Amino acid sequence: MAKRARVLIDCKDKHGLVYRISKVFYDYGLNIDSNREFVDKDSRKFFMRSVVTGDFDENSLQNDLCKIVPEGTNVRVITPRRKKIVILATKESHALGDILIRHADGELDADIEAVIANRETLKDLVERFDIPFIYIPAEDISREEHEEKLLKALEIYDIDLIVLAKYMRILTANFVSNYQGKILNIHHSFLPAFIGANPYKQAYERGVKIIGATAHFVTNDLDEGPIIAQDVIPVNHRFDWKDMQKAGRDVEKVVLSRALNLVLNDRVFIHGNKTIVF
Amino acid sequence: MAKRARVLIDCKDKHGLVYRISKVFYDYGLNIDSNREFVDKDSRKFFMRSVVTGDFDENSLQNDLCKIVPEGTNVRVITPRRKKIVILATKESHALGDILIRHADGELDADIEAVIANRETLKDLVERFDIPFIYIPAEDISREEHEEKLLKALEIYDIDLIVLAKYMRILTANFVSNYQGKILNIHHSFLPAFIGANPYKQAYERGVKIIGATAHFVTNDLDEGPIIAQDVIPVNHRFDWKDMQKAGRDVEKVVLSRALNLVLNDRVFIHGNKTIVF
Amino acid sequence: MAKRARVLIDCKDKHGLVYRISKVFYDYGLNIDSNREFVDKDSRKFFMRSVVTGDFDENSLQNDLCKIVPEGTNVRVITPRRKKIVILATKESHALGDILIRHADGELDADIEAVIANRETLKDLVERFDIPFIYIPAEDISREEHEEKLLKALEIYDIDLIVLAKYMRILTANFVSNYQGKILNIHHSFLPAFIGANPYKQAYERGVKIIGATAHFVTNDLDEGPIIAQDVIPVNHRFDWKDMQKAGRDVEKVVLSRALNLVLNDRVFIHGNKTIVF
Amino acid sequence: MAKRARVLIDCKDKHGLVYRISKVFYDYGLNIDSNREFVDKDSRKFFMRSVVTGDFDENSLQNDLCKIVPEGTNVRVITPRRKKIVILATKESHALGDILIRHADGELDADIEAVIANRETLKDLVERFDIPFIYIPAEDISREEHEEKLLKALEIYDIDLIVLAKYMRILTANFVSNYQGKILNIHHSFLPAFIGANPYKQAYERGVKIIGATAHFVTNDLDEGPIIAQDVIPVNHRFDWKDMQKAGRDVEKVVLSRALNLVLNDRVFIHGNKTIVF
Repeated sequence: MAKRARVLIDCKDKHGLVYRISKVFYDYGLNIDSNREFVDKDSRKFFMRSVVTGDFDENSLQNDLCKIVPEGTNVRVITPRRKKIVILATKESHALGDILIRHADGELDADIEAVIANRETLKDLVERFDIPFIYIPAEDISREEHEEKLLKALEIYDIDLIVLAKYMRILTANFVSNYQGKILNIHHSFLPAFIGANPYKQAYERGVKIIGATAHFVTNDLDEGPIIAQDVIPVNHRFDWKDMQKAGRDVEKVVLSRALNLVLNDRVFIHGNKTIVF
Repeated sequence: MAKRARVLIDCKDKHGLVYRISKVFYDYGLNIDSNREFVDKDSRKFFMRSVVTGDFDENSLQNDLCKIVPEGTNVRVITPRRKKIVILATKESHALGDILIRHADGELDADIEAVIANRETLKDLVERFDIPFIYIPAEDISREEHEEKLLKALEIYDIDLIVLAKYMRILTANFVSNYQGKILNIHHSFLPAFIGANPYKQAYERGVKIIGATAHFVTNDLDEGPIIAQDVIPVNHRFDWKDMQKAGRDVEKVVLSRALNLVLNDRVFIHGNKTIVF
Repeated sequence: MAKRARVLIDCKDKHGLVYRISKVFYDYGLNIDSNREFVDKDSRKFFMRSVVTGDFDENSLQNDLCKIVPEGTNVRVITPRRKKIVILATKESHALGDILIRHADGELDADIEAVIANRETLKDLVERFDIPFIYIPAEDISREEHEEKLLKALEIYDIDLIVLAKYMRILTANFVSNYQGKILNIHHSFLPAFIGANPYKQAYERGVKIIGATAHFVTNDLDEGPIIAQDVIPVNHRFDWKDMQKAGRDVEKVVLSRALNLVLNDRVFIHGNKTIVF
Repeated sequence: MAKRARVLIDCKDKHGLVYRISKVFYDYGLNIDSNREFVDKDSRKFFMRSVVTGDFDENSLQNDLCKIVPEGTNVRVITPRRKKIVILATKESHALGDILIRHADGELDADIEAVIANRETLKDLVERFDIPFIYIPAEDISREEHEEKLLKALEIYDIDLIVLAKYMRILTANFVSNYQGKILNIHHSFLPAFIGANPYKQAYERGVKIIGATAHFVTNDLDEGPIIAQDVIPVNHRFDWKDMQKAGRDVEKVVLSRALNLVLNDRVFIHGNKTIVF
């Protein structure tokens, strides 16, 4: 019976790679529904994402692909599976709400296991959608104590992705190291402009004519993680920083959800502090 | 010695096509610098654009590729060559001027053989750039007589592409049939909105909040040719149609030049009334 | 005690109008917090929106303004008041959901009285937000019978605005005449391109490189009502019409909510088949 | 006989200002063709730009306006006059060329007195347009010596505006102080991102998905001057920094020319490190 899989390969570029990979697909009798490749000139790294259909065993396909690519290569044969995500939030509802609506609509290829927040503000909204809301306050405890509680709460889920939907706390290197390449954040500025606190206030004070938002993976370097998607909207002198903040919400939520869908569809490769988005 | 070529293939999709093509490249010892493919689901047509480097004979490469693709396939192995273009214009200078500046700067991989116009307005501008200006007035003669003169003027050049840089006359089916897939036009609206005369006036009267421009190949169906590139800018109630026209010029010229560069770089496949742009 | 009002004036332009109006404000000791004017050159119509604060009686202010403007002038002195809206929908949740989230968040200066739909699909979503969901099926009855039921359901509310959040039925002239200038629609194309059924399919078949959405007031001329807001996103040959539809949802919902906020804030004047948006 | 003037007023906000100003216009029998106001909430400063027509003496109008505004107010009554500009450039032709084409076309309400460059690259292009090209090399002399030569060359013109069309040298505080609020620059990034050298390389290394350009007035703080206009274009992982640079040129030139036209039309107020753009 015909199955479908996403095949993701990233490795050192090597002469004949496309030929060797397509030969494996050919030998397996697979149809290539879509195929995108990219070679990064600086690092000479090769990236490929193929969607193949046919009658195959994924382990065997993965093994045979591994044989013909350079050692140390990342080969993933992914058959359809809903990913599991947990959302971290604080008190703003627009980004979280956008994800909840999409989830309820069946648009996201994922299950939301829980929403964890350091405020209680969003409890009501989350529970309207019958999703567990976990309140972990951060007051009167150290950052480390708070993150320990977070980690304990997360532990019980087998998480593919953590989505920071306007989670207004900084995560420590320790926390991030537990979820390497698995934390997606929306930053409320057109990075790398306005790193740090209250980007809209900074934007207002600088007098910019365009504001934006940036979805990126979280790494140890705050606001320096690999960017997945960005977008902008025009502003003018009539906008004070609260107007910018209000207008910015629409960009934030749309950019975050766009990045989330890209990640859920296995379209994003992390390459150092950059991304390849197919 | 290492050469470089663009390999363009479009054909009926067929099992094993990527494997067979990449095998030819592999057997020739070619490096694939970049490679993009697309299969149109409706028509089951396959499109590929590869840039390859190596030591090869282009005729032999082309022949060997032809052997492994379905009959009737379009295979082109294009080694670097400056294309020859002629620009048709009327009286507006922005789109023409933009191309002239890029040409003078060496940005365009093309030689401008001549500018032909049905008005004399642009003579001075064109001659500043030491490019032949050919004035073929259209007054007091029939459309057919005018086009005959045009065709005669064009005949002496071995043209790859005709660029209509705000050429304000409609070309007949007869003229177009002489340059199938070789005429590039900029339409001053976001097609298919505002087909026909004075799109800015139509846009103003409709009260739109965004205007745009469309670069497309010219076919017998006026304003219905395959679209290559489009872009837009916001307008508001303070714009009368002349303000829209003025603001629109920047979009027109940038979109036309973007499409021109895409075509000169062999990045555009025509597929019925659509384009595949790699 | 200081009050705040929006003063909206639209009338035939007349020499000294700004002077006369600002004199009334001055005589009342009002502060002008913001003030925007526009004179349409074609119709010689004058539009003004001022936000004033001070200690005043709104009826008396309105009367005094009426005295100094030309006869037949529309003068509205609007003191803060939450507007009442009803949403009409069919089965898609993105535009409706976006409004519900904003409403729950307190972003909208309006109360949602009810959601009325011709399908039951959205019942669950609407009731999660404790908003009445009224199901009025359209099957097996005439358009007129269906609209009669609609009108009856609407009757009980004192509605300021009806929002069509992807309501997929055409309203008759009779229905529209009951809510002149009070029905807001989101059209899933960059109007006036792709009027009529399934704009995304039309867009796909035309091979456009940009798609968009249009929020407009509904008039008797289908898809011809005054446009309030439009926006677009890029697409390419890899998008089939369902991909366009999916990508288009983000534009639709953001444009609709932007227009809705503009209308709720009394920032939109209808002027023939156009709008003035302050 | 009817004259036209732009009236620009910026001052401390004060109760009754609009009334008093419009009364002066009324007493002079002037028609207000367009009128825009803005009050900055933070600084309580009032800005107004009116276009008036009528039969008036500009000095007398200016005097009468000065009488009714707070002391220290900036009142300018500007009757139509072509401004004089000098362009500074280095070696890139796109921004300069764009201005030259617009100038030749009569689009700019300005005379280009000269182009001054620290390289000879653009000599040929400038002279094609019969505009004086002044070559002032910067090699082997100090920054101060070079600027002295620049200032001497500029001295002979009665300049309204200096346009830096990709002038790749930093101007000293001394130079800038000679032309306060009269130097317009295009920065090849979406400020404040990528301040400093080679923004495209920085953008490439950061892995952004959007690049932009910023037109701003030059002040002593490098890249910190008041922003007039900004725009952006999308990029992706296939762009190396030279591709970004090439793509960025279109944004740079369009944004610079847009800002130039705004300034020439007296639509830009400088307000600290920001601008009010009417």
